Amino acid sequence: MSNPPRVSERDLIRWIRSQCQPDTSVQIGIGDDAAVIRSVDGALLVTTDMLLEGVHFELSQCSPGDVGRKAMNVNLSDIAAMAGQPTAAVVSIGLPPGRRPSLAQELFAGLAEAASHFNVSIIGGDTNASKSDLVISVTVLGKPTGSGPVLRSGARPGDALCVTGELGYSLLGRHLSFTPRVIEAQRLHQSYSIHAMIDLSDGLAVDLFHIAEESGCGALVKAAAVPISSARRANDDRRSPLDHALNDGEDFELLFTLAEPDAQRLIVEQPLRDLCIPVARIGSMTNEPGVRIQLDEATIAPLQRLGFTHSWQ
Amino acid sequence: MSNPPRVSERDLIRWIRSQCQPDTSVQIGIGDDAAVIRSVDGALLVTTDMLLEGVHFELSQCSPGDVGRKAMNVNLSDIAAMAGQPTAAVVSIGLPPGRRPSLAQELFAGLAEAASHFNVSIIGGDTNASKSDLVISVTVLGKPTGSGPVLRSGARPGDALCVTGELGYSLLGRHLSFTPRVIEAQRLHQSYSIHAMIDLSDGLAVDLFHIAEESGCGALVKAAAVPISSARRANDDRRSPLDHALNDGEDFELLFTLAEPDAQRLIVEQPLRDLCIPVARIGSMTNEPGVRIQLDEATIAPLQRLGFTHSWQ
Repeated sequence: MSNPPRVSERDLIRWIRSQCQPDTSVQIGIGDDAAVIRSVDGALLVTTDMLLEGVHFELSQCSPGDVGRKAMNVNLSDIAAMAGQPTAAVVSIGLPPGRRPSLAQELFAGLAEAASHFNVSIIGGDTNASKSDLVISVTVLGKPTGSGPVLRSGARPGDALCVTGELGYSLLGRHLSFTPRVIEAQRLHQSYSIHAMIDLSDGLAVDLFHIAEESGCGALVKAAAVPISSARRANDDRRSPLDHALNDGEDFELLFTLAEPDAQRLIVEQPLRDLCIPVARIGSMTNEPGVRIQLDEATIAPLQRLGFTHSWQ
Repeated sequence: MSNPPRVSERDLIRWIRSQCQPDTSVQIGIGDDAAVIRSVDGALLVTTDMLLEGVHFELSQCSPGDVGRKAMNVNLSDIAAMAGQPTAAVVSIGLPPGRRPSLAQELFAGLAEAASHFNVSIIGGDTNASKSDLVISVTVLGKPTGSGPVLRSGARPGDALCVTGELGYSLLGRHLSFTPRVIEAQRLHQSYSIHAMIDLSDGLAVDLFHIAEESGCGALVKAAAVPISSARRANDDRRSPLDHALNDGEDFELLFTLAEPDAQRLIVEQPLRDLCIPVARIGSMTNEPGVRIQLDEATIAPLQRLGFTHSWQ
C-alpha cells in the first residue's frame, strides 16, 4: 500500500478505490450503488461489528491503523468461529471533524492490511462526517469450508471442551494485536469433527454460556487446565490471572467442543504446533444445565456470567 | 410485531431474535458468530450505509422508528438502484446511555418494518453502548434481477435521461418517509433496456455527475423538464424550487438512462402509472464531458457539484 496522501473526502474515496484491487470474484467493487460479487451455490456467511471511540478504543492509546485492523479482525474472527473462509468486506466510517487529515487514510490502511492478510476484498463502504467521535462498522462475508459452518449449537453432553492459545492477555494489548484464527479454525474443522465453536470475544465464561445455552446442555471447566498467558501471570494486579482468563473479553482464541476420543487424539497431535499455538482441553460439556468451574478437587462453583454481553451474532 | 417491552440489553437481543422470523433462505439467523444464508450461483449485491445522530437526524425532530426505517430504506434504495431484489440485512447499533429504555426497541421496530415491507430478513447484528449519540449502520444483501445489475457506468452519449417521481421534497419530510423504489426499478429493468441507473441520495446534480463520470460521457439537463414536487413549489424560501430539486439530497427517486427510442416508448407508456409515480425525461447524455443545464432556450450553464458527496458505494 502506497503512502496515504492528505486529501479531501472525495479524493479520499478515490484513493481508497485505488487501494482496493478486487479479486476476480468481485464483479463491481467500490464506486456503484452496491457492490456485486460472484456467489456460488451453497451457504454465505455474514457478520457485522461496530467499534466506537471512547467505548472500544481511545486514540490516545492506539493508532488509527490499530483501530482499522481491529475493526476488520473482530469480524474475521467471527467468520473463523464458523470455520469459514472470509471473502469480502464493506466498511462504514464516521469521521470526526478537526482531526489530522491523515486519520482516515491511516484507519483505512489498517483495515486494508488486515483484510489483505486473508485475501479479503474491501468491496464498498460509506464515509460520513461524525459530530465528535470516530465510528467504524465493518461487515464481512465468507463461505463455509469442509462439511459446512460450525455452529455454537452443536455441543453434546460428554463432549470435551478445548481452547486454542493462551488467555488473559487481551487487556495487556492483545485486543489490538491479535490475529484472527481463520487458518487454525479451518484446520481443526478439516482434521476433527468439531461439534460447536465460538471465538472468545466476550470472555471465556460468557462465550461458554453461549455454547451451552445454544446447545441445550451445560459445561464444567477445570480451573487448573485453563491456559493463562505468561504475560498475564507476570502482571500482578488485584484480580487473579484466572479471573482475567475467564472474564476479560477479546482474547479472540477459539473455544470448541468435540467427542472425547477425537479430543484425546487432538491433544496428542497438537495440530497447530507449527503455528506455535497450543490447544488445551479445559473441561467437558454436561447433561446438567449451567456452566460450572472446578476450582480444586473438592470445590465446584457456578461460573458467573460476567464479561461483555453486547454481541448478538 | 408485538409491543416492545422495556428490557435489559440481553433481553433486548432475545426480543429482537424473537421478532426476526427468518425465511427459508436463512439457515442460521441471529444468535451465532455469523449468519448463514443460502446463496445461489450468480451475483450477490452488497451495500452499506451509516446514520449518525446530530448529523443525519435529530431525535427532537423524528422518532426512533423513523430513524430505523430510514437506516434500512437508504440501503434498500441502493439495491433498487441496481434493479436488485434485497434479501437480507445485518444491523450494527450504538445506543447512548440515559435515553428512554424503549428507544432501542422502537428503533428496531422501524428497521424491521422497512425490511419486512420487501421481505428482507434481518439476520444478525451488533449492539453497543455508545458514549453520547445514537449510531446505526446497516448492510443489505440482494440479488440481481432480469439481465443482471444495472450499473452507473452503462450510459452512452445520445441516451435519454429520465427520473421517477417528483424532486425537491426531501427537506420537507420525504427523506424520512420515502419508500425505496425497489419494485419500480425492477419493473423498468424488465420492460426497457436501462443502460445506467442511480438512486437520488446525494442530489440530482451530484448523482448525475456519478453516472456521467462512471460512464465516461457528459449530460445535459433541461431545467424546465425537471419534475418538482408541488409541495416544494408551494413552500417558498430563499432558494428556488429548481435549486432544491437539483441539489437537495435524499429524494430517493431513480435517475436512469436508456436509448432514445426506448425512452419515447416509456414516456408514452408511463409504466409506473398504477403506482402513481410519473416518469419524466429530463435531458440527454452527451459526448461532451461534464454536466450542464439548459436554463432556457438561449442559456446553457455548467451544473455545480453541490449536495452531499460522502457515499462511495
